Amino acid sequence: MTTSVAQQAETSHADCHSTHGYITDKDRYLARLKRIEGQARGIARMVDEEQYCIDTLTQISALTAALRGVALGLLDDHMKHCVLGAAQLNLEAGEAKMQEASEAIARFMRS
Amino acid sequence: MTTSVAQQAETSHADCHSTHGYITDKDRYLARLKRIEGQARGIARMVDEEQYCIDTLTQISALTAALRGVALGLLDDHMKHCVLGAAQLNLEAGEAKMQEASEAIARFMRS
Amino acid sequence: MTTSVAQQAETSHADCHSTHGYITDKDRYLARLKRIEGQARGIARMVDEEQYCIDTLTQISALTAALRGVALGLLDDHMKHCVLGAAQLNLEAGEAKMQEASEAIARFMRS
Amino acid sequence: MTTSVAQQAETSHADCHSTHGYITDKDRYLARLKRIEGQARGIARMVDEEQYCIDTLTQISALTAALRGVALGLLDDHMKHCVLGAAQLNLEAGEAKMQEASEAIARFMRS
Repeated sequence: MTTSVAQQAETSHADCHSTHGYITDKDRYLARLKRIEGQARGIARMVDEEQYCIDTLTQISALTAALRGVALGLLDDHMKHCVLGAAQLNLEAGEAKMQEASEAIARFMRS
Repeated sequence: MTTSVAQQAETSHADCHSTHGYITDKDRYLARLKRIEGQARGIARMVDEEQYCIDTLTQISALTAALRGVALGLLDDHMKHCVLGAAQLNLEAGEAKMQEASEAIARFMRS
Repeated sequence: MTTSVAQQAETSHADCHSTHGYITDKDRYLARLKRIEGQARGIARMVDEEQYCIDTLTQISALTAALRGVALGLLDDHMKHCVLGAAQLNLEAGEAKMQEASEAIARFMRS
Repeated sequence: MTTSVAQQAETSHADCHSTHGYITDKDRYLARLKRIEGQARGIARMVDEEQYCIDTLTQISALTAALRGVALGLLDDHMKHCVLGAAQLNLEAGEAKMQEASEAIARFMRS
């Protein structure tokens, strides 16, 4: 009846991919990332066509904001599904996942 | 012998595109933006393949940092060529360009 | 033997304040915030003495980085103690706390 | 009738402090920085009284935004007075000031 830590980690990892909510959102994320890719291509074209620098900067600001929106969404999903899922198994697994999320947040805030 | 403000604006705008330094850097910018577009495509693929969320966030952080590097470079070029070029014509033209750059900086810092 | 949601919220809130780790870190946070207050006072003095603007900006950058460090530390503590503490009680309580933390992260990233 | 580079740097530096606009704004900056110092003190008190972590984070976000507002204002003033003032003297002096401002912007964006 006991579950090894390895098994728990396995289960918790599986949990990140199997929830219905995650699958539902995936199409929306892919659509947003498609737009982001188009924005990146548009910025390259603006530089290539030597469009006015301030306009290019405005587009880069918009792309940066869009990327942050995606990052915040993914982070929110991750914390609600993977981190809480792990915490449901046991505190230790939850703490390990939370530590990892915390480091990703710090990395993102400094990027 | 007098130059109208409209003519000055025209001249100063032309200045942004004609300097040798700008053309030289253009290829480097295009190469960086090509890489950025590839990074955006890679992130979409990671979401599509349901790769681990924290790894996707790390890639978004890297892309955000790369975009900021491009923005800082373009801004630096713009201020040294367009803004200073306008200021060489007259103070009023310089101030108008500086105001515009200042607003772009504020927009970028808030993005 | 059942615990009401209100009781759970109460317990989970108490959890944020009673852990030994939190108390230990408190003195360190207070020392860092004391330094931050001194940095703010130093910046006011620089403006008052009309010191060179670029030097003042450098000090504001340092203060901003110090504040972000404190925010990341508090957030990390909060997520490991309050959020995981709530998740230990039940999933619903954990999700409510996580939602709140997630909104705070978004707010901070946009500040 | 020629002015040495040293004399120009001197003049341009003086320019940063002597403009009427700068003096006018100074009181407003000092008032904002006074408020910022009070915000920092308030955050220390919140931690000392062990107030709810999310509320403390909200106050840190507000303080960070206030600091950025001051930084953007100082930068704008600096670029319009010192940098353009130097550019009025000669292009070389303007470029040196602009390079310095550009580095301060990069430092601030990464802080």
